[in-house]
Amino acid sequence: MASYRLLFVLFVMICSVTAIGQPRALVFQSDFGLKDGAVSEMRGVAFSVSPELRMFDITHEIPAYNIWEGAYRLYQAAPYWPAGTVFVSIIDPGVGSERKSVVLKTKTGHYIVTPDNGTLTLVAEHLGIEEVREIDEAKNRLRNSGKSYTFHGRDVYAYTGARLASGAISFQEVGSKLNPQVVRIDYQKPVVENGVVKGNIPVLDIQYGNVWTNIDQSLLDKLGIKIKDKIHVTIYHEGKSVFEKDIPYVNTFADVAIGENMSYMNSLLQFSLGINQGSFSEKYKVYSGAAWSIAVAKAK
Amino acid sequence: MASYRLLFVLFVMICSVTAIGQPRALVFQSDFGLKDGAVSEMRGVAFSVSPELRMFDITHEIPAYNIWEGAYRLYQAAPYWPAGTVFVSIIDPGVGSERKSVVLKTKTGHYIVTPDNGTLTLVAEHLGIEEVREIDEAKNRLRNSGKSYTFHGRDVYAYTGARLASGAISFQEVGSKLNPQVVRIDYQKPVVENGVVKGNIPVLDIQYGNVWTNIDQSLLDKLGIKIKDKIHVTIYHEGKSVFEKDIPYVNTFADVAIGENMSYMNSLLQFSLGINQGSFSEKYKVYSGAAWSIAVAKAK
Amino acid sequence: MASYRLLFVLFVMICSVTAIGQPRALVFQSDFGLKDGAVSEMRGVAFSVSPELRMFDITHEIPAYNIWEGAYRLYQAAPYWPAGTVFVSIIDPGVGSERKSVVLKTKTGHYIVTPDNGTLTLVAEHLGIEEVREIDEAKNRLRNSGKSYTFHGRDVYAYTGARLASGAISFQEVGSKLNPQVVRIDYQKPVVENGVVKGNIPVLDIQYGNVWTNIDQSLLDKLGIKIKDKIHVTIYHEGKSVFEKDIPYVNTFADVAIGENMSYMNSLLQFSLGINQGSFSEKYKVYSGAAWSIAVAKAK
Repeated sequence: MASYRLLFVLFVMICSVTAIGQPRALVFQSDFGLKDGAVSEMRGVAFSVSPELRMFDITHEIPAYNIWEGAYRLYQAAPYWPAGTVFVSIIDPGVGSERKSVVLKTKTGHYIVTPDNGTLTLVAEHLGIEEVREIDEAKNRLRNSGKSYTFHGRDVYAYTGARLASGAISFQEVGSKLNPQVVRIDYQKPVVENGVVKGNIPVLDIQYGNVWTNIDQSLLDKLGIKIKDKIHVTIYHEGKSVFEKDIPYVNTFADVAIGENMSYMNSLLQFSLGINQGSFSEKYKVYSGAAWSIAVAKAK
Repeated sequence: MASYRLLFVLFVMICSVTAIGQPRALVFQSDFGLKDGAVSEMRGVAFSVSPELRMFDITHEIPAYNIWEGAYRLYQAAPYWPAGTVFVSIIDPGVGSERKSVVLKTKTGHYIVTPDNGTLTLVAEHLGIEEVREIDEAKNRLRNSGKSYTFHGRDVYAYTGARLASGAISFQEVGSKLNPQVVRIDYQKPVVENGVVKGNIPVLDIQYGNVWTNIDQSLLDKLGIKIKDKIHVTIYHEGKSVFEKDIPYVNTFADVAIGENMSYMNSLLQFSLGINQGSFSEKYKVYSGAAWSIAVAKAK
Repeated sequence: MASYRLLFVLFVMICSVTAIGQPRALVFQSDFGLKDGAVSEMRGVAFSVSPELRMFDITHEIPAYNIWEGAYRLYQAAPYWPAGTVFVSIIDPGVGSERKSVVLKTKTGHYIVTPDNGTLTLVAEHLGIEEVREIDEAKNRLRNSGKSYTFHGRDVYAYTGARLASGAISFQEVGSKLNPQVVRIDYQKPVVENGVVKGNIPVLDIQYGNVWTNIDQSLLDKLGIKIKDKIHVTIYHEGKSVFEKDIPYVNTFADVAIGENMSYMNSLLQFSLGINQGSFSEKYKVYSGAAWSIAVAKAK
């Protein structure tokens, strides 16, 4: 019987050593670029917390200070990671100012460690807010980093994210609970008015020059738009029309000839514009951001 | 005696927990770039299949739609990864068209998950075709991704690659066996004619501006070319001579003065042209692709 | 009693299987860029040595042949990784020449595998030299790589780094001990003279255009400079003054209005110049390197 008890003790030891149970991913995003040592400093800090952490990235090529694009990339990638994943997102033009350092737990069980400066706008909206906690820097800050005012990404966010992902601290130990709300960036929501869908161009599919909108299938359905229809598209920059054409609505690029305009549902299932093997954005000088909007109707 | 049996059971449990045996790498390549969330979506899907997967990359900076360069990078990197490694290569201008989704098992035991559009040209030739299977999308497709027509990289290729690398499915479970052949891109093979070696410039060593060819040592041997010889090099673009010079053939860059032309065997043991601490490609406007060829002879 | 002995044997087996004890990180740096397959070849070689290795990067975007910047990035990132971490740093314009291939063990317990061509200048100075060993290529070189003269990064450095990090060889097995010194690049050290601190601009904070110096707090203290003081800054290129202005000394970017000049201690606790949400480097054409120096005094 003694051997059974020993076996049990041994098994518990082994389980703790081998971290039975799903390890949680730590996923970074920033506007730091990959040319200097900043991302590596963050990873070194996280590795020092736990060498067993699985570390990944969304991107570090967010244009400098572009909080909106950070919000979009987080919204784009987060749903493809499992519940429990911890994201560390640092686009922080206000480092050292009064913006709060928070961890958002979404209703889907994802954690985002970030300055609360608008980066959470879209995940809060689409994944839901379960709970928001403010990082208690008295407890959750890399030791001996007190003199550095400017690299909270490393000293506070990466460190806290690593401790949360590795189980060194619980979500409760991040710090005290805040009201379940985050700083939100105002943007044009998609609407249907008089047979026209209006929306925003939040981001480009940069590598290929495709133009993505925030308009989903259900809105096209309200206009009765179907695959193979022609769609009348108008694009506005600061309210001024800069593009107006009829464009076929198809399933995929190969459905039109090389070099032709097409519209389709992108991989996030949102209405998009492209050119088969070309760049819609470059050809028509259409870009993205709050100043860009689009109107879509059935072509006559 | 009971304790021996217990120990055995325990040992089996532990082995399964700790995944004794070589974990297999999952290595990604694409033309997505690293500026948006696409690569991260693929990794999130793979991590959801198995958090124990070891994920790496060849590059995500393949020029958009450049299948040939994708074929070359795969051929360049694959041999340095161990047998059993699973590559997911996505340069897919024909997404949604009739190109087949396949997994190639090479004679060297490497697996490549990819649209069969030419990307396999060089690995098929150099590593050999052991077996080709078509991905059965009814079984091997991320759940609830059926509405998205355009991101097969994530929904089919990354998902299938992750399942294969983690052992969730066997190679047989990928789908049914095809004829052991792949779509091949036609390109100029290296030949010796009348004391001249002719070949192609498949790719540049981009970072340094060196010019790589598909000519190996054995062909130079046939001309009796040895280290320290002068070589007569002619380069053609679309059949028209654009460069003609005698260049020393040396072991390494440091064998010539800074700024001087040199030729050498590159790290893949193929004849190449460079300038010590300079860019041969930029200086002489020599680039790569099917339209570029080279003739090499002993200098007189 | 027999079961106790069995348990002990089993526990030892399990420990070896699960690699109890801190796994060591293998961290790469190079001037290879990420557009071709070179970094992946190195990782494949390291993965073949041990699939359990945890691999990371500082950056692969060191400008080609820029040994000084490599030295700086190593100095910047290494302290944030734990003792035992193995760095493989390859900026190797002299590949194939007589430069030695070494492994430096610092007094802080970090290992750096590199050609000894100046890359070790700053880590030797700041982390200290514990021991230097020359890589014995007869033993520590990827099998069957003898014909390749030009990719020591893969065949010697990555291979040796992976074997050291995985425990396949000990530090002693790298090769014979050298004198405890490394090749050092000469550069302007920070000094105080007549109420003026002089120093060098080793590097830019590229992504944001901030200008970093090698001047630390203790030197400013000697001039009695405090937060909120105005500082008189002169910048010289090759000895010629190219910038001269009074600039506020603050804690962080948000302490000045958007678009205003400011000076601050950066995340490495060194005196730096920036513009809140702008690029100091671009606006004033100030760059980095041995030819750039700076003088700092209290403004009158």
